[in-house]
Amino acid sequence: MYKDTNKRSIAKGVSWRFFATTTTIIIVYVFFGRLDLAIAAGLLETVAKIGLYWAHERAWFKIKWGRKKIEPFNIWFTGLPLSGKTTIADAVYKELEKLDIPIERIDSKDIRDIAPNIGFSREDRNRHMHRIGHLIKTLQNNSVSTVASFVSPYRESRKAIRDMVKNNVVVYVKADIETCKVRDYKGVYKKAISGELKNFSGVNDVYEEPQHAEIIINTDNTSVEEATIIIVKYIKKNYVK
Amino acid sequence: MYKDTNKRSIAKGVSWRFFATTTTIIIVYVFFGRLDLAIAAGLLETVAKIGLYWAHERAWFKIKWGRKKIEPFNIWFTGLPLSGKTTIADAVYKELEKLDIPIERIDSKDIRDIAPNIGFSREDRNRHMHRIGHLIKTLQNNSVSTVASFVSPYRESRKAIRDMVKNNVVVYVKADIETCKVRDYKGVYKKAISGELKNFSGVNDVYEEPQHAEIIINTDNTSVEEATIIIVKYIKKNYVK
Repeated sequence: MYKDTNKRSIAKGVSWRFFATTTTIIIVYVFFGRLDLAIAAGLLETVAKIGLYWAHERAWFKIKWGRKKIEPFNIWFTGLPLSGKTTIADAVYKELEKLDIPIERIDSKDIRDIAPNIGFSREDRNRHMHRIGHLIKTLQNNSVSTVASFVSPYRESRKAIRDMVKNNVVVYVKADIETCKVRDYKGVYKKAISGELKNFSGVNDVYEEPQHAEIIINTDNTSVEEATIIIVKYIKKNYVK
Repeated sequence: MYKDTNKRSIAKGVSWRFFATTTTIIIVYVFFGRLDLAIAAGLLETVAKIGLYWAHERAWFKIKWGRKKIEPFNIWFTGLPLSGKTTIADAVYKELEKLDIPIERIDSKDIRDIAPNIGFSREDRNRHMHRIGHLIKTLQNNSVSTVASFVSPYRESRKAIRDMVKNNVVVYVKADIETCKVRDYKGVYKKAISGELKNFSGVNDVYEEPQHAEIIINTDNTSVEEATIIIVKYIKKNYVK
């Protein structure tokens, strides 16, 4: 995925003018120039130069100089189960798609669907993170940005992601655990508290709060719309110019 | 990743001419037209239109119409261990990179490095294929083509890949098993024959030959260079126009 730089467009303008003006001068010379003839020349020019313009455009497609590779970023949403990561990430993804950049949405649920045998132990989670990191890196190699949402409770695995990918933006979706328990429409907190679910972050396994998050969204006083605006603004300022 | 269509370039030519010729006519009218003045007009035009051309170019970047999404393909190399898949795939990848299309190389070895606990049983292999298929599909969603090399001994898993991805080109790298055994610089055939390695395709596990391969490379009478030419020609003819 490439984007033209200003320099490239100016150079295209200069080279186009060279051919176009030479044509104009020859045509005006042939007609010796009166208003009616100038208009006639203009019409003739129109016909001649459209073909020339087209050939010029196609020739420039062969020239690589001045094309800029789009710099990809990764937005990494972390937070307790049901803190609101997926909802905010979906809204952010929808906004960023409008910018006409190559972007992919990666959610914990989808990845676990295709790799159903991944466990929730510390070792399993870290290995899982390593795979996700590889996927993001492969996409980034091809200029594709990513919006990823994973509980990712351990500092070491978030650190591993940060080391593997570039332009990593950690968004900590901070929600009071009591709020999450109230939101428990899936009944997962209930199951964790009763002991039916093991290794459940925030209940019977640790959630290590991020210390270096680029953005913190406190869901107790920030709506999804407000969070989306904050995050999209950050991305536009730093990565999409 | 986008590529301009011919229609788009012609439309750019027409719209450019509209503004440029209007400018020319006004300028020639002001000068009433003699040769020297026509040249002066041409020079003035040069200065004025370069800026106009540039603004015109930048304005067109905002217009999505006429941009074509590049259609990605997947070249899938299958064959016995040490049949020469990786060598040919590397050479093909190197050639295709020159075409300036977004393309990614995926090799069995790299994937198993990042997911070291994948086994070699039929079930493990099929699950593994499902993950690879997901990776290729995600890349294809973003116009990225792939050159993948995996023993992939089972028809069902190659079929699963074909169902998941688009523009799938299976290359069967056909080598006589005796030739592979002679090439056994890794000592893997020796280990498989002695029973040290289990589930080894071609020795103590089946390799199901592809029945619908788009391309068959017989390594007994085809060099790596010849194979590369055949495959790149096929891709250019069918997918890179």
